[in-house]
Amino acid sequence: MQFSINRQAFIKALGIVQRAISAKTTIPILTGLMIDVSASNIQLTGSNADISIQTLISGDNPDYELTISSTGKIVLPAHFFSEIVKKLPNRELLVEVGDNFQTTIKSGNSEFTINGLDANGYPHLPEVDSEHPIQLPAEIFREVIGQTVIAVSKQESRPILTGIHFTLDHNQLLAVSTDSHRLSQRKVELPTAAEGDYNVVIPGESLKELSRMLDSEKDAIEMHLSENQVLFTFGKTRFYSRLLEGNYPDTSRLIPNSSETKVQFAAPDLLAAVERASLLSHESRNNVIKLTINPDNQVVTITGNSPDVGKVEEDLSPAEVSGADLEISFNPDYLKDALQVFGPIDVEVAFTSALRPFTITPVENQENFIQLITPVRTF
Amino acid sequence: MQFSINRQAFIKALGIVQRAISAKTTIPILTGLMIDVSASNIQLTGSNADISIQTLISGDNPDYELTISSTGKIVLPAHFFSEIVKKLPNRELLVEVGDNFQTTIKSGNSEFTINGLDANGYPHLPEVDSEHPIQLPAEIFREVIGQTVIAVSKQESRPILTGIHFTLDHNQLLAVSTDSHRLSQRKVELPTAAEGDYNVVIPGESLKELSRMLDSEKDAIEMHLSENQVLFTFGKTRFYSRLLEGNYPDTSRLIPNSSETKVQFAAPDLLAAVERASLLSHESRNNVIKLTINPDNQVVTITGNSPDVGKVEEDLSPAEVSGADLEISFNPDYLKDALQVFGPIDVEVAFTSALRPFTITPVENQENFIQLITPVRTF
Repeated sequence: MQFSINRQAFIKALGIVQRAISAKTTIPILTGLMIDVSASNIQLTGSNADISIQTLISGDNPDYELTISSTGKIVLPAHFFSEIVKKLPNRELLVEVGDNFQTTIKSGNSEFTINGLDANGYPHLPEVDSEHPIQLPAEIFREVIGQTVIAVSKQESRPILTGIHFTLDHNQLLAVSTDSHRLSQRKVELPTAAEGDYNVVIPGESLKELSRMLDSEKDAIEMHLSENQVLFTFGKTRFYSRLLEGNYPDTSRLIPNSSETKVQFAAPDLLAAVERASLLSHESRNNVIKLTINPDNQVVTITGNSPDVGKVEEDLSPAEVSGADLEISFNPDYLKDALQVFGPIDVEVAFTSALRPFTITPVENQENFIQLITPVRTF
Repeated sequence: MQFSINRQAFIKALGIVQRAISAKTTIPILTGLMIDVSASNIQLTGSNADISIQTLISGDNPDYELTISSTGKIVLPAHFFSEIVKKLPNRELLVEVGDNFQTTIKSGNSEFTINGLDANGYPHLPEVDSEHPIQLPAEIFREVIGQTVIAVSKQESRPILTGIHFTLDHNQLLAVSTDSHRLSQRKVELPTAAEGDYNVVIPGESLKELSRMLDSEKDAIEMHLSENQVLFTFGKTRFYSRLLEGNYPDTSRLIPNSSETKVQFAAPDLLAAVERASLLSHESRNNVIKLTINPDNQVVTITGNSPDVGKVEEDLSPAEVSGADLEISFNPDYLKDALQVFGPIDVEVAFTSALRPFTITPVENQENFIQLITPVRTF
């Protein structure tokens, strides 16, 4: 196996698969990067227990300035190999595998020889090419992940809640997450109705990593399902994740159908006030702030308190307040997380009572995105 | 005590004194920020066991938009107070101290009340205003710190070596540091001859912090000495540091007067090659790279080796090689640190023998700056 390649373009491709590679793994060969050189392309693979990423370096792409002299496979220590490639002196580099998987990397006057591993010991990736993939613009999918991943549980006590629940009904994709204190639900109309049965829970951590990779992706992403794996394909990259096993709780009944008190805010204004109030709540043991809603004089007062440090009080002037008087206490961090994903739009916060969950929705398109937060009893 | 001030300008001033304030201190009041409001100015003070920083908010400076309604002093929880100021909604803020050191901070509709502390409990800063300060352009002093702080010892076993040794002979300031494996020495001609006796050791950590503060300082800095404190003044800021007690070792005899082998390199080229070689040495237990110098064919070969991972070899083409053949091994991190502070200039590396320290100097102005590294015996 021997090839030469443009160093900067190679560094980018290495960066893609390295996202899946961890130095902390119980399977030693997975600290390595698999390089599979065929007659006209190179496939790079990185993997850990949860996700695997493959990307194709295509000989057709002139950026790579790729010259393949002989084909073959090798597994190289991932972190170390990419550190070498980053530090090499010249525009191009040459990789050549010799006896006993000894691999030589040359660039200019610099010559590294490192110990590789037999690629036959590298685990096979699952076969996940469904006939009915879901197609979605990458930007929309990134938005869906960002809006739901905030409510994913960080506790391993109920593993199923560490994932996002995706279901498909005709051309409507529904994504739901909850850590049992709050819930986030997003609906997306697919451009074309997908066939097949979709009801899966994908680990939140896998989706966070995928979302980062979609940052610069302009095109569509395809989602393929098998029994216990999901495969996302975009550009020259394939992203595999395991699925979570078990039944996701029925969340549809948690969302209230009616409300007693409604307030409309510009999301950034409410967010700034909650951040100020949380400065004090973070200093107290129970981390709770209080909203006092008075529809008669159209004022909402936000208060935070810490016996050791002091207190804060702020009168907000919402765009609209209607319904019954209310005093409600809750964890400000949940509301901060919720408001951050709305961006600079107007939101409606709808309350039923001091001890019932309240909802936050965009004033426009209320149906598509809803977040729910459970209050805290303070009396 | 009551004043109103422009929020952005106040945030900058708070940032200056906060550099000295640590949440981890055994003296509780030092987690606080001292605010001393006089008729026309506000003085802010922050301190820890090693350094203290004072800065003056001058009523003459229109950026502060300062209005002082009543004078007084208060100590406020530093981190918490500046978090509040950063998050307040309006352009201005008002600070008012009430009964029992309760302090109100108002901006727009937001009103914080926090518990302050009696300023009479705040330690007094030492009096350090010498008659014969050393004056130096801030930029030069920052360069001196940057060039010598790299060789300061990080081990507390010989506390005196954790500082930089400054001595003054007529108008020549000498700064020396050594951790007993390497040494860095810089000479500076002062614009004017200073009077008085200067022979002090200033903690490296204090000087690192000072150096960061001088980043944007264009003017001169003054250095004042007392028996156990040094005071640096620049702009509206006063920076105090304790001095290290004890005698600094005599380092002048460590620097060799002659050499057997000399090599000239462009510092960035040698640095890049050393960084590559250190990728491998870092993977081996003793972290050593080897230079093989062959003046006959004008080649210097750099090699790094790790039994587990592999090896690297690179032929360098120095600008000049003269003297005897040599093979020498050393810790590459010392040479990396040394080369980094030279910047993009040509340097001369001069060797006596494989087991004697070698020196690195600029090809021009060799007298002013010298670094010394002790090799490692590998045979």
